[in-house]
Amino acid sequence: MIRRIGGHTIGFEEMPSITGYASVVGKKESEGPLGSMFDKVIYDSYDGKDSYEQAESQLQIEAVGAALVKAKKKANEVDYIFAGDLLNQCISSSYGLRDFNIPYLGQYGACSTMAQGLIMSAVFVESGAANIAMCVTSSHFCSAERQYRFPLEYGGVRTPTAQWTVTGAGSCVIENVKKGPCIARATVGKMVDLGVTDANNMGAAMAPAAAQTLKNYFDDTETKPEDYDLILTGDLGEVGSKALYDLLKLENIDITSRHNDCGLMIYDRKKQDVHAGGSGCGCAGSVFCSKILNDIVDKNLNNILFMATGALMSPTSCGQGASIPSIAHLINVKNR
Amino acid sequence: MIRRIGGHTIGFEEMPSITGYASVVGKKESEGPLGSMFDKVIYDSYDGKDSYEQAESQLQIEAVGAALVKAKKKANEVDYIFAGDLLNQCISSSYGLRDFNIPYLGQYGACSTMAQGLIMSAVFVESGAANIAMCVTSSHFCSAERQYRFPLEYGGVRTPTAQWTVTGAGSCVIENVKKGPCIARATVGKMVDLGVTDANNMGAAMAPAAAQTLKNYFDDTETKPEDYDLILTGDLGEVGSKALYDLLKLENIDITSRHNDCGLMIYDRKKQDVHAGGSGCGCAGSVFCSKILNDIVDKNLNNILFMATGALMSPTSCGQGASIPSIAHLINVKNR
Repeated sequence: MIRRIGGHTIGFEEMPSITGYASVVGKKESEGPLGSMFDKVIYDSYDGKDSYEQAESQLQIEAVGAALVKAKKKANEVDYIFAGDLLNQCISSSYGLRDFNIPYLGQYGACSTMAQGLIMSAVFVESGAANIAMCVTSSHFCSAERQYRFPLEYGGVRTPTAQWTVTGAGSCVIENVKKGPCIARATVGKMVDLGVTDANNMGAAMAPAAAQTLKNYFDDTETKPEDYDLILTGDLGEVGSKALYDLLKLENIDITSRHNDCGLMIYDRKKQDVHAGGSGCGCAGSVFCSKILNDIVDKNLNNILFMATGALMSPTSCGQGASIPSIAHLINVKNR
Repeated sequence: MIRRIGGHTIGFEEMPSITGYASVVGKKESEGPLGSMFDKVIYDSYDGKDSYEQAESQLQIEAVGAALVKAKKKANEVDYIFAGDLLNQCISSSYGLRDFNIPYLGQYGACSTMAQGLIMSAVFVESGAANIAMCVTSSHFCSAERQYRFPLEYGGVRTPTAQWTVTGAGSCVIENVKKGPCIARATVGKMVDLGVTDANNMGAAMAPAAAQTLKNYFDDTETKPEDYDLILTGDLGEVGSKALYDLLKLENIDITSRHNDCGLMIYDRKKQDVHAGGSGCGCAGSVFCSKILNDIVDKNLNNILFMATGALMSPTSCGQGASIPSIAHLINVKNR
C-alpha cells in the first residue's frame, strides 16, 4: 500500500527492493575517482556504431542487460520499463530498448529521469501493477553537445559555469522481495523557474527546484538532514550545490555535512577539465547505480536521500529567450 | 487494488473515474465534424503569443484549466500531473504547466501520450499514491511541421500517406469517486518495429503496434471486439487503419464493425485537405476529451477501448536511416 505523507510525499509500506543495478560509462568517466566501480566501460565514443546517438542507445542496452543479469531475471519477466534521456524524442531509450520487448513507458524528466524512473517503478511494483519493473536512463557527451550546444568539430570554448555531460547509463530492477536496498518514500517535484536564462549555468537554474523538493520532504516526514547518512543530488555541480546550500540556509536547513553531488563525485576536477562538474541523465544514473548502491549493499550507507534534478528547457525555448523551468524528484533509499 | 490479468493487462478494482475533461483545438479542427464539441477554439495559430511553441503551451494551459473547472477542483488540490507532447524536450508541457505548480511527471509516448497519461493517472489514484491526478497532452500543426518536416514558409508538397497534425489538446482529472466514466483495465504496449522508414507514413509504422496491443488485451481478458461499443485508435488515419484490419485478420480478429480512429473523425476529409487524416498527441487527446467522453457520460457509449499509438522516432533517427519503432497503449473505459 502507498500512503500519502504530508502534502508532497508518499510512503511505500512494502518498500520495493532494488534487486539488480548496473552502470556503464565512457572512457573519461572510467578515469575518474569512481572508475573501478562501473560495470562496463565503453572506450570509443561511437562504441563501434555509426553515430553518437546509436552509441548512447548502446549504453542503455548494456546497462539494462547487466542489471537483468545481476537480478537473475530475463527481459521477458519484466512487466514494465521506464526510460528516458536527453535526446529529442528520447531516441536513446526507444532505439536502445526496442529489442528487449518489454512493455515500455517513456519518461521525460531531463536529468531528473533516474529518480523519476525509480519512483514510477516503485509505485507500479507496490501497487501490484507490476511484479518486476525496470528503469534506465543515459546521456552521452557527444550527442548532447551536438544537440544542445555545438557539434564538437566547432571547437567552442566552454564557460566556467558549464558542466560536462557524462557519457553513461544506469539501470535498476525493482521487485517486492523484502531484502537489500529498498525505496521507502518518494517526493515528486513541482517545476520551479526563478528566471535563469543561461543554459550554460544549469546548476543555478536547478538549485531552487532541489531546495523546494528537499524542504517539502523534510516538512512532510518531520525528519532533518542529520537523520540521513547521505543527501545526494544528481548534477547540480559546484555552482548549483553552493546555490542549494544558500537557498536552504534561508529555510534554516543545513545539509552541508551530509550532501554530495554525483556531478562532483564522478570526475577528478583537479585533473580532468570538466569545469563545474558532471551533468546529464547518465551522471546521476551511473553514480547511483554503482558506488551508491554498492555502499548501501555493503552497509556503508543505510538511509539516504537521492534527489535528481532536471532542467526542462530545449534549445528552441532558450533560443526564444525563455527562462529555464527546473524540477527535482527525491527518493529515500534504505537498507533492509 | 491493481491486479495483473494475463501477461500484459492490469485491472483496476476501484476503477478510477474521469471527473473532469476538456479539449481545446485550432480553427481547422473547429471546422470539422466535431467542431461544436470542443471546449475552446483558438482561431489564431499564434494565439497571441510570440511563437508556435508558446501557442502550443497555451493549448495545454486552457485544457488543464477547463478540466479543473469541470471537475470542480483547484490546481493546488491535484497531487500529480502527467504530461507530454511532440516537441523536443516536451517544452509545450513544461512551459505550459509550470505556473500551475502541480507535482509534474513528464511523459514521452509520442502520439500515445493521452493513453499513457491516463494509465499513469489511474495507477497513481488506484494505488493511493494520489487522491487526484491529471493528465494532458497537445500538438500544434505549425510547431510540428517546423520540427519534424519543413518550416511552413518552405511550402513543401505533402505525400498522399501524410497526415495532418492536429492543433489541439486534451486533459483529464482522475479521482476515486465511483461515478461517471471510469478506467477499468489497461494494457501497456511493447515497441514494435517492422522496418518502416517512411516518416510520411506513420499510420503504417504504428499499425503493427496497435495490432499487438489489441491482441494482447483480447487474449488477457478473454473478450472479443463485439464486447465493446467502440474500439477507438488515436491517429492511425486511413492507411494505418486499413493496415490494422489486415494485421488483425491474420489473427482472426475482426474489429471493422466496432473501430473508429480519432484521426478519421476530427476532419471532414472530403472538404478539408488533410490527406490520410489527423495525427499528433492532440488528435487522440482532443477527440477523446470531447465527443468520446461526452458519449460515455450521456450513455451513448458504455464500454469502449481507447488505444493511442505513437511513433518513437525523431528527425535525427530518420535522417540516419533508422526504421520507426512504434507503440500502442490501451485503456478500457466504462460507464458506471
